[in-house]
Amino acid sequence: MTDRMTSLIEVFGHGGDVETAAARFGGNPADFLDFSANINPLGPPREVLEALEQGLHTVLRYPDPGHRTFKMLLSDRLGLTPDHISVGNGAAESMALILLGLAPRRVGTVEPGFSEYSALSRQFGAEVHYVRGREELDWRAEPENIEKLMERVDLLFLGQPNNPNGVQYPVEVLHRLARKAETIGTTLVVDEAFMDFIPESQRQSLAPSLKEYPQVIIIRSMTKFYAIPGLRLGYALGRPKWIHAMTEKQVTWSVNGLALIAGEACLRSGENFEQETMALVSYERERLTAGLKVLGCKVTRGEANFILAALPEPWTATSMQAALGERGILIRSCAMYPGLGERHVRFAVKDAEANGRLLETMKNVIEPDTTNGLEAGGRNDGTAIL
Amino acid sequence: MTDRMTSLIEVFGHGGDVETAAARFGGNPADFLDFSANINPLGPPREVLEALEQGLHTVLRYPDPGHRTFKMLLSDRLGLTPDHISVGNGAAESMALILLGLAPRRVGTVEPGFSEYSALSRQFGAEVHYVRGREELDWRAEPENIEKLMERVDLLFLGQPNNPNGVQYPVEVLHRLARKAETIGTTLVVDEAFMDFIPESQRQSLAPSLKEYPQVIIIRSMTKFYAIPGLRLGYALGRPKWIHAMTEKQVTWSVNGLALIAGEACLRSGENFEQETMALVSYERERLTAGLKVLGCKVTRGEANFILAALPEPWTATSMQAALGERGILIRSCAMYPGLGERHVRFAVKDAEANGRLLETMKNVIEPDTTNGLEAGGRNDGTAIL
Repeated sequence: MTDRMTSLIEVFGHGGDVETAAARFGGNPADFLDFSANINPLGPPREVLEALEQGLHTVLRYPDPGHRTFKMLLSDRLGLTPDHISVGNGAAESMALILLGLAPRRVGTVEPGFSEYSALSRQFGAEVHYVRGREELDWRAEPENIEKLMERVDLLFLGQPNNPNGVQYPVEVLHRLARKAETIGTTLVVDEAFMDFIPESQRQSLAPSLKEYPQVIIIRSMTKFYAIPGLRLGYALGRPKWIHAMTEKQVTWSVNGLALIAGEACLRSGENFEQETMALVSYERERLTAGLKVLGCKVTRGEANFILAALPEPWTATSMQAALGERGILIRSCAMYPGLGERHVRFAVKDAEANGRLLETMKNVIEPDTTNGLEAGGRNDGTAIL
Repeated sequence: MTDRMTSLIEVFGHGGDVETAAARFGGNPADFLDFSANINPLGPPREVLEALEQGLHTVLRYPDPGHRTFKMLLSDRLGLTPDHISVGNGAAESMALILLGLAPRRVGTVEPGFSEYSALSRQFGAEVHYVRGREELDWRAEPENIEKLMERVDLLFLGQPNNPNGVQYPVEVLHRLARKAETIGTTLVVDEAFMDFIPESQRQSLAPSLKEYPQVIIIRSMTKFYAIPGLRLGYALGRPKWIHAMTEKQVTWSVNGLALIAGEACLRSGENFEQETMALVSYERERLTAGLKVLGCKVTRGEANFILAALPEPWTATSMQAALGERGILIRSCAMYPGLGERHVRFAVKDAEANGRLLETMKNVIEPDTTNGLEAGGRNDGTAIL
């Protein structure tokens, strides 16, 4: 138990690692109820699974190294010519290609933020500087502090909405940062990996203004909203010169053929899936937030498909992860995010049934006295009083 | 016609680009009979397609960033601990990771050879030096010239069997080069992407001696032999220190989940597929070689699943590619390989029916007077005499 209580399952630095979870807690990797990865609870659109089934035989051909059909569909949807688009083997590769193609010596991040911003930057030889968000701003940083950081770096990563806190900066702040980027020649990379989960009227995005800001690059992910993280597909939008520099660093056929088929099907799938997802996530986020508060969690008010929360004392991310892990539920410890503490965890917003099971299990874990039967007083350790 | 006669379809530097072919010659990309990509004509093993069908729903989970199951199966098969194995998003990524992880300043290649050796080396900032193979050695280079090149570089890429000529160096030569690598501290990267197509008794491989040569890295591909190039899967074998350095440069989740499922199924599939493939390729290679010679081609005697040939005058790679392209058949121009000439082309060895169609179509194209009907005197340009 001690080992389990002190060890983490984020051995690769991320959520969604059901293999490690199974090794730690026992059971089949596929059987975990996974709140540690922020994937659309609806799963992939039906059309996407159909397209994959019908396209399985294409694995015997090389993927199109120019990603032409997918790019054309994106180009139509976004109103940008294909030379403004770089398709990546997941958004993570898009980040890597930005770093390889633009070769910034100093990179800035706002913490807490997605760990790959700093990990990849160091991996490709850049120095990382950062500013911290403030708890009273839901872990946003002060715009003037971000501007000051921009003066000290060649490139800044900003999550919008940001992971793990799920909040957006108002678009006015983004315009201010973009203007700053133009003035001082720093690159502003806005990571919109989770933007699709936010209803269009509430999105704070620079995408419509991309042409005004040649110093801005936007990253998007297809894998979270369309629930295809196993396939890997993301893209970056920016000025042709930078897109070209990124393409120069991309390994041929880096984006696999089924990812392209799925991506094309996603872009061709109707608006129903999008509407249904946003309605579900919005409703369930409120319900989960309320339930977590009842359990004594301090919840950050975000707009994305995940929730950052501080657990009630004496629970820590590690002890709750272990308690839930033994019950077949995975959550994401956020104890390793700079600025957050040992009680911070992140929950993906899933469907009603899954969220209900999470809340009930957490209740049993946190308040064992108020429950009956097997759960009372024990963590499957054989001391339960029947 | 003039445009077609002078333009190439290798706009991305490789064969297998049916999209570009369709744009040049018309028709549906999937309908081309593709001799330009060297893929197993049997297609994927049945078990692999079944595993993919059954595993399609796993696209909604992240791939295992540690590639643990696939690595374990490889480890069993190869008798190497997992820390000697780096799994790549195709063999091309394995090459890129070697270059990123080991950061050689000068890279050596033997030409003609796979174009990615030099392309990726330059892409990641290395200087490329090379020696040329000699036609009388079937485009192999003299071992002493390779040794001299090794003295001038930090890392040398060697294809075994080599692409595009399909020949091996005797294993004694490899041992000599490996000893040289140990003595002078140069890294020797042996690319065995097509080795699986050669019957075991004829394979000239350093793999069984890998532990004796810490300066040697071996690259393998799963996508050619198992006919899954659309999915991307390869690996590199080498000492743990270098494997670690490569892993450090790999983007998280770079290898997609379906590639891992397919790779696991490949390694679990029986020996029947392997035996059947080797028998087919060996038989059809001889038949295709004989047929090409009858048509006046000068054929290099190789052992792999592809054939390098020089076309009879006045045909060039470009004019034959156009003539066959218009008839729905793709071949690989090798005119751009250093050391080869404008008449060099490469043909994948396919099944009896496909190879027969290639030979017949080439005969009609080369000797139009001896044929009847639609083919005579024309290239579908409407001038055929009925």
